[in-house]
Amino acid sequence: MRPLEDYLIIDFSQFLSGPSAALKLADMGARVIKIEKPDTGDICRHLYTSNVIMNGESSVFHAINRNKESFSADIKDDHDRQQIWDLVKQADVVMHNFRPGVMERLGFDYQSVYSVNPSVIYGEISGYGNEGPWKDNPGQDLLLQSLSGLTWLSGNAGGPVPMGLSIIDMLAGNHLAQGLLACLFRRTISGEGALVQVSMLESAFDFQFEAITTYYYDGKLPERSQKNNAHAYLGAPYGIYQTANGFIALAMGSIPQLGTLLGCDPLLVYTDVASAFHLRDEIKAILANHLLTGTTEQWLGILQKADIWCADVLTWDTLMQHDGFKALNMLQQVEMSDGFTYRTTRCPISIDGELLTSAKGSPKLGEDNAAIINDLITRHEH
Amino acid sequence: MRPLEDYLIIDFSQFLSGPSAALKLADMGARVIKIEKPDTGDICRHLYTSNVIMNGESSVFHAINRNKESFSADIKDDHDRQQIWDLVKQADVVMHNFRPGVMERLGFDYQSVYSVNPSVIYGEISGYGNEGPWKDNPGQDLLLQSLSGLTWLSGNAGGPVPMGLSIIDMLAGNHLAQGLLACLFRRTISGEGALVQVSMLESAFDFQFEAITTYYYDGKLPERSQKNNAHAYLGAPYGIYQTANGFIALAMGSIPQLGTLLGCDPLLVYTDVASAFHLRDEIKAILANHLLTGTTEQWLGILQKADIWCADVLTWDTLMQHDGFKALNMLQQVEMSDGFTYRTTRCPISIDGELLTSAKGSPKLGEDNAAIINDLITRHEH
Repeated sequence: MRPLEDYLIIDFSQFLSGPSAALKLADMGARVIKIEKPDTGDICRHLYTSNVIMNGESSVFHAINRNKESFSADIKDDHDRQQIWDLVKQADVVMHNFRPGVMERLGFDYQSVYSVNPSVIYGEISGYGNEGPWKDNPGQDLLLQSLSGLTWLSGNAGGPVPMGLSIIDMLAGNHLAQGLLACLFRRTISGEGALVQVSMLESAFDFQFEAITTYYYDGKLPERSQKNNAHAYLGAPYGIYQTANGFIALAMGSIPQLGTLLGCDPLLVYTDVASAFHLRDEIKAILANHLLTGTTEQWLGILQKADIWCADVLTWDTLMQHDGFKALNMLQQVEMSDGFTYRTTRCPISIDGELLTSAKGSPKLGEDNAAIINDLITRHEH
Repeated sequence: MRPLEDYLIIDFSQFLSGPSAALKLADMGARVIKIEKPDTGDICRHLYTSNVIMNGESSVFHAINRNKESFSADIKDDHDRQQIWDLVKQADVVMHNFRPGVMERLGFDYQSVYSVNPSVIYGEISGYGNEGPWKDNPGQDLLLQSLSGLTWLSGNAGGPVPMGLSIIDMLAGNHLAQGLLACLFRRTISGEGALVQVSMLESAFDFQFEAITTYYYDGKLPERSQKNNAHAYLGAPYGIYQTANGFIALAMGSIPQLGTLLGCDPLLVYTDVASAFHLRDEIKAILANHLLTGTTEQWLGILQKADIWCADVLTWDTLMQHDGFKALNMLQQVEMSDGFTYRTTRCPISIDGELLTSAKGSPKLGEDNAAIINDLITRHEH
């Protein structure tokens, strides 16, 4: 039995942060019903990346919303509101990621839901919390990266470099999922419901916790290396280097040992361990020039034998051809109700040795209305 | 009551991935006991970033291991092993992040622990899973970024650019925490224990799930823009741009509308929505040149009024002076048993309106041995 089997999540959230949390809960067994606006639905349905359209909707939507049901309802219409209330009353979890105040105006805020379902676990993700001058600003990933200081950690010394995925959305979703799960657990012991709140700004700040703890202590802003930066707080060789035919990643390691193994004499003088950080620019420059003189395979052959932490730098093409990738079965094919199939990733968690795969693709807008009404609303009215 | 109050986690993990999961569980109320080698302890105690030493140990260790206890024990010594068994027998959760096979050799693998504690929730994080040719490779963040294709998403077109934080470690920790919580929940219903497994490679792959779903559909590897890239799959203006006195982040928005608002006539011709992606290099170049002609404040003043998604690009210095930051109270001061205090981040989740702060700093190696023996081992032996 999957851990959340028979649990009902009513999910008002859109885009990525909330829906990515609900996806993890769905893969762990919960029944997730997306409440969507008639006609348009989750805005993400038409938020195209690379202008790729899959079966009439965005690839991003399909990735995030597989293994869920869609209930289309006009939250401002009396009849539809009553149906939503019927669902919310039976829900184990209700969640949303609207800006502060929106759910209060719509009438499905925590206090209102609690008044009819006192054991509900209610989750919300905001951009910047419910207080302060930023609370009404758009909670968008790149803006959060930019405001939270995160852009000064990646890339080489110079201007800000954002991380090229919606990392803050995903972390906020992960944090919400943990809070919801912990409170579901508590509820089975104490019967208590809960309000779980996460903001993207808090998640962005938590993400940088190691570096910020260091900053609080020494007061210095992060300084990235001139070239081959992979972490502002780590010394040479930490970084990715070009070789004669590709790239190689080097993590931690002794500089003189690397000099000996790679046949790079200029590295032998850096015997002071502290110099790997303080002189990392000059060490990295020597290493970068030297690594160009051999192939990735040559260097990996030498270094891996000596237990130096290193790796090839793969693209998805080369990754997916590799037996190391194939061994993990990370791909799954899912099918929509109209027969359209697509390939996507699966849940990264396995339980009791079983992969949490699911063959159900993303729902068409409102496709589950009849079944949900029959299953949860009519029955409930009897 | 915090959700995990009175729950006991015996944590054999080191570095970041496992310990970051345990930190979240500790902040949600669990009692976390780190099992550490005598003399050296968690290797992370002396894994320095920027060579910053705080109270004799690394800032990173202090950031990750606050709010935990330390039990030093030699897992190969008979007397100490018996003490560890006493703890493991009483544990709600046992977890580690050793490479596959190590826990089997040490004798505290899932089957062995299960035989004395059948309702245990046992968690493990590996680098590359328990099968396949990579299983014995070092599970280090930069190497995982490099192997999983992640380095082709950040930075501008050209070579690989890693993300400058240990993102895969943190995601794997988040995923493990979710699996553990879901199974703790299931245990309260069914009494069943569980084995929860996560690998860094699966977490790295899951992290890219939107882009990989797109790639599976159209077969094209990610292409970053020439300049101002912030997401390989999004069109102009998505990116960070230099201004006369700093930087500005622009998320999604209509190009002609931006042209009008910013007084940048050359943008007015891009009326075809699809061109924002296909012609993003030329659009971004026009925008980059134009934004240099005004200050960040000027541009933000115009764009925010028109509800365009944009933000300033802050450093931690400027962030922490801002009322938007202060409103969230994201900082906490913690104290070690010897009186050393330090400032760090807090748990990003709040429950029932309360922040999950904790005043307890990181433990000195073995500082809790006597109390743990008295509290959990002697009592247990009676």
